[in-house]
Parts: sequence; structure tokens; C-alpha cells
Amino acid sequence: MNDASSQDPEQQSMPPLGADHPSVARILRRWRQLSGGRHTRDPDRKTLVACSGGADSVALAIALAQIPSSCVLAHIQHDMRTPEQAEHDRAYVEALAKRLGVDCAFGIAAVSEEPGNLEANAREARYQELARIADEHACPYIATGHHADDQLETLLMHLMRGSGTRGMSGMRPATPLGNKTLLRPLLEIPRNEIETMLRELDIAWCHDQTNDDPAYVRNRIRQDLLPLLRRLDPEIARHASQWSQDLVAMQEVMDERVEATLMEPCTITDSQWRWPRELLQAHPDIMLGYLPGLYCLRVLDNEGADRITRRAIDSWIRSVKSDSNNPTEHRIGPIVAHIRAHEVRFTPAESSELST
Amino acid sequence: MNDASSQDPEQQSMPPLGADHPSVARILRRWRQLSGGRHTRDPDRKTLVACSGGADSVALAIALAQIPSSCVLAHIQHDMRTPEQAEHDRAYVEALAKRLGVDCAFGIAAVSEEPGNLEANAREARYQELARIADEHACPYIATGHHADDQLETLLMHLMRGSGTRGMSGMRPATPLGNKTLLRPLLEIPRNEIETMLRELDIAWCHDQTNDDPAYVRNRIRQDLLPLLRRLDPEIARHASQWSQDLVAMQEVMDERVEATLMEPCTITDSQWRWPRELLQAHPDIMLGYLPGLYCLRVLDNEGADRITRRAIDSWIRSVKSDSNNPTEHRIGPIVAHIRAHEVRFTPAESSELST
Repeated sequence: MNDASSQDPEQQSMPPLGADHPSVARILRRWRQLSGGRHTRDPDRKTLVACSGGADSVALAIALAQIPSSCVLAHIQHDMRTPEQAEHDRAYVEALAKRLGVDCAFGIAAVSEEPGNLEANAREARYQELARIADEHACPYIATGHHADDQLETLLMHLMRGSGTRGMSGMRPATPLGNKTLLRPLLEIPRNEIETMLRELDIAWCHDQTNDDPAYVRNRIRQDLLPLLRRLDPEIARHASQWSQDLVAMQEVMDERVEATLMEPCTITDSQWRWPRELLQAHPDIMLGYLPGLYCLRVLDNEGADRITRRAIDSWIRSVKSDSNNPTEHRIGPIVAHIRAHEVRFTPAESSELST
Repeated sequence: MNDASSQDPEQQSMPPLGADHPSVARILRRWRQLSGGRHTRDPDRKTLVACSGGADSVALAIALAQIPSSCVLAHIQHDMRTPEQAEHDRAYVEALAKRLGVDCAFGIAAVSEEPGNLEANAREARYQELARIADEHACPYIATGHHADDQLETLLMHLMRGSGTRGMSGMRPATPLGNKTLLRPLLEIPRNEIETMLRELDIAWCHDQTNDDPAYVRNRIRQDLLPLLRRLDPEIARHASQWSQDLVAMQEVMDERVEATLMEPCTITDSQWRWPRELLQAHPDIMLGYLPGLYCLRVLDNEGADRITRRAIDSWIRSVKSDSNNPTEHRIGPIVAHIRAHEVRFTPAESSELST
């Protein structure tokens, strides 16, 4: 790789590990697409690679280390594991960074004593720590090794939770994370291609302990369901990845439609959103269904978004579209929707409770 | 049920079987929604019920037989079964029709000697026969007993085949079938609710032999995958059904967008469709991806639609969006797409082959 050798003279004697491997080239290409494309110089897409030591994150590290000046490895230790396990993986990542000729940083995500869902807490703490380290190393991008099999798992999780249209499209290849951008350059690549690449490069990897998360359903999906699906369709992960890409693209068309047809004619006063009821009645339910989530995001800093249920949205839409002119109020998570003969209004639940 | 007793005086002495059951009421309500809603009189939605004798189609028959004058049962015999099996189920359906006080008709779908996919042939022959019988009985509607578990199975089949955005939304609750409309009033109801209803009404049913189709993947899905999914999430069929409804609704928004933004500015001359290339370049790939299928449907009577591959569509879109001004031609199934500096044109593959 020319970039690597020209930017780091010490590497000139030997090409970076994996420089000739097609999967490495593919990951690099995808990383460039996701981080600004052709018009962005490699030094401007400096990326912190979340590296647990598992096969996926090691493959990602090898690919991005082709441009050593744009790649920093970050290893996050979780307090849910034994000191021996934690030390083993930390040492592995340190040695890998050295071998790849890239910088390496370490962080800690301590969550075992926190209340709530352990998996969700660990994920949030991990991302916070990654964002902090990315700041320290002036990286505008953070990359993770999520691959096509992870995407399939996520789709199945959403299916089982009865997620709405937004959740069901799975993980996005690029998504904002505070003032950083989170990239997933492996999202279209199945796990077996990643392992093949590492075997061909003669690279060992750690058993990825962060994947042994305690969520019961996710483990059962991974251990029981995925192997069965793979036997039925060896290409299943690739198909799930394409499916998700199509859904994300459809989602973008939906977003654009909601903005153009429902948000442009919306009257916004402080935290109050108002529409002519006839306008909402003229549009499909699926588009109306986006409004509560959008209100949460824009007005309430997403607080209470997890309390919006499909049932509450469906019931509100039924009332908006009904022939009844009786004024009604609907609670949709942290929102109160006021329906009048010719008007529909959203206000935050608290302020509405004060005013009534 | 008032309708039934007022329309058929012989039934006045005894309410129809299942008249008080909530699942029966739910199926009836859905059937009315799908067949014209409040503004259509029940006699105008006369419906031919495809009844194999299996639990799902028996539940459907019981529900629609609440209005005997609007319900005709149809039993189709397939030539892939032994005469004993066939005769058993036929006799069962005949007795059921008598007990429900509705008309009953029989048809034959002979496909075992035809070339091609046996499952697909059997389905097509079954629908042809149903359409013929519906004509004879002046039924504008045909109803089938497809339920939420069937929908889940269909979604998984599409996932495994790598279907595009259209296929992946699963079965529709109402869809045209020649000059009839095919209805699926049970599509949101899980199989276990259907069986519970029949047990509560003390109705036996036949083992649904038409479900033992020879397609290997579908059988594996039904026998191995679905039980595992149900153990992981007892509500999985309901969730799959909601997911599919959301996808269908999104699909409708997409269709509307494609019509408004890509078809209105399309110049149509005989079998040739022409767009300014800049117009296509300004719209998302997912919308361009609909055009070949639409062309097939409208210009070629859908002939060759099954030869349109995702790969061909992707490659065509890449070329349309590229900076290259070299004229190129792309084969997309039965279509030739001609790309010029400022124009994109579709013609049928044959006529193009003649002219070049």
C-alpha cells in the first residue's frame, strides 16, 4: 500500500501485514467510502479501531493499519471478566498494535454494579470510553468490527422484540456518536470470510469474550438459531446484510417524505407541534407513526423515547383518522397528543399535566 | 349474527356455529375491512373460501359462514396424494359445508406430470381452479386461510432467497387475482389462536396435506426453524405479521414516490421508456431499482420478471450514476437498458437484438 509506506518511512522495508489480501482491500475500500469517499484524504479520516482481540476486530485492525498514521487501536476492558481473561486479551491487542506499527490505547468500562440491563450498560460505557479515547487521539471516526452475521442476529433480535420500522432495519454502516462518526466497514462481510482471511494471513485471535454477553435471547439466537439458519442457507448472513441495506434505503425515502409532507406544514411554537387534522388524515398511517419518535428526538432530547409503544401510536392514529369530532387526549410515552375537530397538537407530557 | 338470520330464514332457529366466538368476530371484521369496508353490503362481497380441511381454512369457513349467502366453500383436490387421503378430506369439507349451511364446490389441480417446480405449479393450478369456481358462483372475492405463522415462514423464505425489497414484505392481505381479489383475513392471527378457536368450538380438522409440500427448504423451515423461533419468542408470528404490515405500508410509499418522481417524467413510446439521465442520477438507488420490475409488469406482461437479478440491477444503477459518458448497454433479465451521456432508455431484449 503506497499510502502506508509514503507516510511512515520505517515501514518502507516491508509491506504491511495483509497488504495483498483481497478482503483487506475490500475493508479498506468500504472504510474510505464510509468516511468521506474519494474527496477526503486518508489523514483526515483518522480512525479509532475498537479491538477486543476477537476475529472481527483483528481483521478490521489489520485492514486499517495499512495506513498506520490513520489508525489507532483501542482496547476496552470490562469489569465482568476475570483479571486473567482481561489481561490476556489486553496483552494480545498490545502485541498486535506493535506488529502492525500503529498506536494503541486502553480504556475501562465498569458497569457490573450499575442497575439496569447489563448488556445495554456495558455497550453504553464502552462507546463512552471509545469516544473519550477518540478525542484524545484526534480521531473523527470510531470503527467497530460488526459483520454480516451480527447484522442477521440484530435483525432477528428486532423481529423477536416486535420492533417498529426504524429498529427493524438493523445496524447502520455509519451513524453519529456524539461529535464522532461510528463506522462499521465489515457490515456486509460474513463471519466466515473474516476467519478465512485471518487463517490465510496466519493470524491467531482471541475468543471474543465481549460476545458472551449475558442476554439470554441473544445467546440462544447465536448458539441455536444462527447455525440452523446457516445450514438452511449458507448465504444467509449476506442476504440479511442486503436486506438491511434495502431497509435503510427505504427508511431514508420515508424520512424524506415525512419531512416534506408532515413537517413542512407543521406549526412549531416552543415545544408545541401543531398540524391541521385534515392534513394528517390524508397521509398513510406508516408516515404518521414516525411523528412521536421525531418529536421525542427534536424536542425532548430523546428522553422517554423508549416509553413510546406501538399500541399507543396505533391508538392515536386511529383517533386522528376517525370521524369523531370530540376532543380527546392521548398519552404516547412522554408526549400528550391533543386531537380536536380540525387540529392535532403534540406537547410534552409534564407541561400538559401542569396546564390541565 | 343478524345478517345471517335475516338473509336465511331456515337458520333463524339456531345461531350459526361460532357466532359468539371472539376470533370468529375478528376474522369477520377483517374480511369486511379487506372487501370494501363499511360502504359495501355483505351480499356484494360474496367470497369463495379455499377450504382444504386444515385448521386454518376450517376457521376461515366457520367465520365467513356467519353470512351464509356470502360464503361458498371450494375444495381443490391435488393429484399428488393417494385417492384415500383425497377422498377423506373432500368428504370432510362436504360435511362441513352442510353443517355450516353454505354452498360447496370441488375442483381438481393436476400437476404431477408437468415439468418445473412442483410446488409452484400446484399453487398456480390451485389458484386457476379457484378463479374458475369463483366465476361460476359469481364471487368477486377468493379467501385463503394463510395466517401469521405462514407469513413468518414466507418472510424467512424470502430472506433465504435473498429477495429484493418487494418480495421481502411477504404476503399481502388483499391482492388482485385475474378479475377477482384474493383475501387473507387470517394473516395477522397466529396459528395457535386458530387452533384454540376450533378446540373451543369442538370442531375437528384434517391434517392439512397441502402443507406437506415437497419444497425442501420450506419443510425444514416449518419443522426445524419455526419451533425454535417460537420457543425463543412465543409472539414471533404476531411480530412477523406486524413487520410485514409495516413493510407493505413502506412499499406503498415507495411505489407512490417512484410513480411521482420517475414515471411522470418518463417518455413512453410504444415499448420504449426514456428518461433524462440526470433525472435518474438525482434519485436514490432503491427507487431506480424498481424500474426494471415495473417495466416488466407494464410492458412485458411480467414475462421474464423472474430473470431480473439483483446483480444486473446493481450494475445498471452503478453505470447510470457513474461519471462515464461512453454509451453502454445492460441486459436486465428481459430488458435492455441503453445508457447514453444524457439519456437512459429501456427496450425489450428481443426487439433490441433485432435492431442491433
